[in-house]
Amino acid sequence: MALRFRHAALVGKFQAEGIREVLERIAAFLVAKGLEVSLDTLTAQNTGIAQYPVLGVDELGRACDLAVVLGGDGTMLGIARQLARHGTPLVGINQGRLGFITDIPVQQFEDALGPMVDGLFEEEQRTMLEGEVHRDGAVIFDGHAMNDVVVSRGATANMVELKIDIGDEFVANLRADGLIIGSPTGSTAYALSAGGPILHPSMSGWVLVPIAPHDLSNRPIVLPDDSAISIEVVAGRNASVNFDMQSLTSLLHGDRISVRRSPHRVRFLHPRGWSYYATLRRKLHWHVGIGSDA
Amino acid sequence: MALRFRHAALVGKFQAEGIREVLERIAAFLVAKGLEVSLDTLTAQNTGIAQYPVLGVDELGRACDLAVVLGGDGTMLGIARQLARHGTPLVGINQGRLGFITDIPVQQFEDALGPMVDGLFEEEQRTMLEGEVHRDGAVIFDGHAMNDVVVSRGATANMVELKIDIGDEFVANLRADGLIIGSPTGSTAYALSAGGPILHPSMSGWVLVPIAPHDLSNRPIVLPDDSAISIEVVAGRNASVNFDMQSLTSLLHGDRISVRRSPHRVRFLHPRGWSYYATLRRKLHWHVGIGSDA
Amino acid sequence: MALRFRHAALVGKFQAEGIREVLERIAAFLVAKGLEVSLDTLTAQNTGIAQYPVLGVDELGRACDLAVVLGGDGTMLGIARQLARHGTPLVGINQGRLGFITDIPVQQFEDALGPMVDGLFEEEQRTMLEGEVHRDGAVIFDGHAMNDVVVSRGATANMVELKIDIGDEFVANLRADGLIIGSPTGSTAYALSAGGPILHPSMSGWVLVPIAPHDLSNRPIVLPDDSAISIEVVAGRNASVNFDMQSLTSLLHGDRISVRRSPHRVRFLHPRGWSYYATLRRKLHWHVGIGSDA
Amino acid sequence: MALRFRHAALVGKFQAEGIREVLERIAAFLVAKGLEVSLDTLTAQNTGIAQYPVLGVDELGRACDLAVVLGGDGTMLGIARQLARHGTPLVGINQGRLGFITDIPVQQFEDALGPMVDGLFEEEQRTMLEGEVHRDGAVIFDGHAMNDVVVSRGATANMVELKIDIGDEFVANLRADGLIIGSPTGSTAYALSAGGPILHPSMSGWVLVPIAPHDLSNRPIVLPDDSAISIEVVAGRNASVNFDMQSLTSLLHGDRISVRRSPHRVRFLHPRGWSYYATLRRKLHWHVGIGSDA
Repeated sequence: MALRFRHAALVGKFQAEGIREVLERIAAFLVAKGLEVSLDTLTAQNTGIAQYPVLGVDELGRACDLAVVLGGDGTMLGIARQLARHGTPLVGINQGRLGFITDIPVQQFEDALGPMVDGLFEEEQRTMLEGEVHRDGAVIFDGHAMNDVVVSRGATANMVELKIDIGDEFVANLRADGLIIGSPTGSTAYALSAGGPILHPSMSGWVLVPIAPHDLSNRPIVLPDDSAISIEVVAGRNASVNFDMQSLTSLLHGDRISVRRSPHRVRFLHPRGWSYYATLRRKLHWHVGIGSDA
Repeated sequence: MALRFRHAALVGKFQAEGIREVLERIAAFLVAKGLEVSLDTLTAQNTGIAQYPVLGVDELGRACDLAVVLGGDGTMLGIARQLARHGTPLVGINQGRLGFITDIPVQQFEDALGPMVDGLFEEEQRTMLEGEVHRDGAVIFDGHAMNDVVVSRGATANMVELKIDIGDEFVANLRADGLIIGSPTGSTAYALSAGGPILHPSMSGWVLVPIAPHDLSNRPIVLPDDSAISIEVVAGRNASVNFDMQSLTSLLHGDRISVRRSPHRVRFLHPRGWSYYATLRRKLHWHVGIGSDA
Repeated sequence: MALRFRHAALVGKFQAEGIREVLERIAAFLVAKGLEVSLDTLTAQNTGIAQYPVLGVDELGRACDLAVVLGGDGTMLGIARQLARHGTPLVGINQGRLGFITDIPVQQFEDALGPMVDGLFEEEQRTMLEGEVHRDGAVIFDGHAMNDVVVSRGATANMVELKIDIGDEFVANLRADGLIIGSPTGSTAYALSAGGPILHPSMSGWVLVPIAPHDLSNRPIVLPDDSAISIEVVAGRNASVNFDMQSLTSLLHGDRISVRRSPHRVRFLHPRGWSYYATLRRKLHWHVGIGSDA
Repeated sequence: MALRFRHAALVGKFQAEGIREVLERIAAFLVAKGLEVSLDTLTAQNTGIAQYPVLGVDELGRACDLAVVLGGDGTMLGIARQLARHGTPLVGINQGRLGFITDIPVQQFEDALGPMVDGLFEEEQRTMLEGEVHRDGAVIFDGHAMNDVVVSRGATANMVELKIDIGDEFVANLRADGLIIGSPTGSTAYALSAGGPILHPSMSGWVLVPIAPHDLSNRPIVLPDDSAISIEVVAGRNASVNFDMQSLTSLLHGDRISVRRSPHRVRFLHPRGWSYYATLRRKLHWHVGIGSDA
């Protein structure tokens, strides 16, 4: 049987301690399965592992046809964002509590990873947001986000007022703590805490979730992802914008954040039998219940 | 200039009083614009208007290339559901407070309708739900819904427990007052009251909204509309199911409600310049505000 | 040291199977601690335990200075409601998942109960609702509730409209699936599922929680419990009212539900060191978390 | 008939333009009713009104037995906070959209104010929060709040983690955007936007409302106001605390915010017939409705 993959990029959680031994076991396993293995620069520096080639993220993207990530959802989303332009599929191995995306427990990585590198896996694709901040006709910031783009009030400000447009249609002026533009991936993150719905990953849409809106009828809206979203800061001091965790603070009135779907999609691989709904049940503790027995 | 439409079906709100004079004015206006006009049977009976041909709804669907409806959203959705198989586009004229769909005020119907019958309009298409109830291998009920399919607990029952599957995937067992499967059209109706998000009409999806769920982490989910949804009654006395307003009560344990996207879409026509977001702002009173001036 | 209690009523979960052996152990333990023990009629019938006096609930209330209940919160609240007029303090022993009130696991009942019957315990008092339904000047139903009084729409009805008055002040007309009048005890039950806040048991107040309200700004209100609440059915078919689980269906327009604080309070005893907040943390799974590791 | 009041403090909205003429009319009206009138320093400076004695706020509190405020709820709450220690009752006259507290429209001030200065009014008392921030054993900030004390994450921080204690009981560790401790007065302000319930002003309680909490079961809690609340910053960068609008930023881990009920209550006077619920209906637009006619 021909191997499905031939060269794996191996990436560990940033600055994590005690992951050298596990990464070496994963690397040895992949080599034994017949794959080349390369490490990303930060992982090599952090762990001191020296017996594999070390490449920058873009070099990994060009050279590798698989990325194996050791860490949680945050690590996975960070590297996925960087590899998106290369189309490299990612697999996540988790040392702690399983995530929404990193769903292979480290204790069972051989059993899970073996069939996957042989080509037996479930693949799902996730959309990504991209955008920039415009001020006085110039672009002063740009970024990508797997989870969400968030515009928020300044720390001591009462509120921010945002003018929202979709494509060339005016939607509303929103007075709130802020606004989350969430992808399906981000719909189970911050957007969920702020009262948004869950979006199935196959939905071609974003969810706009107002944070503590002044008008009680300002509710989350699910929109198609083929129109550009424009958010203009109308009022409020020291507002900021975050693309996932990259931030621009001190937004001025008139600054405009423009967001759209990235042309790149991220490919996540899961073991055969993986189920999105099973992940939801596990992560959201459905059936744990308040439990009022008779 | 060639007329876009040639034969209009005219439908008035069911059992409404005092609509004869307005309907006659609308009919005369359409005739003056060069259209044939036919009335539906119930409207003719209700109003006593006799100078136009009277047809049943299916006959109207076969004969007419436009339906002009006088009433609110309820009237419009009811007739739209029946005309869906014929693809007849609908226009709504409203005597009272404007609806989400019936957005032409009767006072201005000539100005609005004139350009529309000449072919100047915005068209939007809405998806529709269809489904049936299965008991012991037989179908005991079927229906269509523009807004939503709702499964609810019985009046004096504590709660209903529902097993939810999407396609061939198990989603969750839900203990709640009930579950709403809402279309984008229905997302601004009951589903919104129960805490669901707004779905833009162009989204190819449904929203599943639990009603007063026992587990606090049971949140609304937005799903693609290309998979069948199956809801099985697992526990709870006297549960019922509603397709829009058609009801089946006294569901038994093991009864299974199967719901999918109808092959038919409903076509709504609006005056040029119509905006879905403007309708949202008007209906949800955005910007009315709680208003805490300094 | 003088014993604090001298005669315990022993009550088991209604129609529960396999509780005889545990009840006998509890009874023997209480006797060994020097207490008289009496069984309630239903418990004796259900279990066949014959070596203790058997009394009706009211007789138990007059004779006993302690009630020991084996079951969940539902059992506890049911018997508490009946004993309220006698002021009998209650202790709850739970065979399954611990409740909000029944917080002694059966495996440790000796360790927990021993110090308690010696007078070492935490006592908390809970308010209770009482009320009746008025029709055409007559009272057609009355009831008591530890958790809540709920007015709901009929199974196939669209909505119910309720006129709410507090004391002699008009509050609002509510269009919704229903309205919950919850006590602090009930605030962690149905009212919580419907979006209400948690009320600390020492609060002298009720919470009014609308169920799926049509107006998005109809929010839960916390009210002092010293005013009568009046709910009049203005519109909606087949509405019903529930006092805890006792129901009156087929309410008519004009029917008025009147609710007030019962003159009786229920006394719950807990082991020393009991904490209401610890119970909340356990029952609501605080800190379980969605868990997005980096 | 003896006048109820003899000396009114007159206060205008801070830095408002065009209020001189109205203030002069109010002053003249009060003088005509037999009252002495004094202006607060900032109002005199802002308007240039010179014919009345000018006093600082504390002097006004000592000298006056009534404060008449021209402005919105923000102005009213600001001056109320400062006058609280003197027990001076306040009346609010509003030039714009009526507030929750400032409910006399300027167009009708004579009709409303006349009977009030004669002693015909409704009085309600509102509780106030006070507290301070502790760092390394020292108090580094203190403040008072009519609405709320809010602890929030820093602008670019992911989240803040707060340890909450009530009296000497541990409540929970909260991971969220922040936490609002709201008074009944504040329950219709920011706390409402964040999902909190409305607290009737006569409730002796606070509401704790988590802002976008990570755990979906972290819900608003209503607590008695006779226990001290302690909030310790456990994690999160650049958290801040606000007492109404007074802010302390750059909180450090280990900083502890201590909040309790102020010994002072604020007295608000309203015209006869005033109703709290009527104010709610007006401010929250109850009955405006989404409005789905048939």
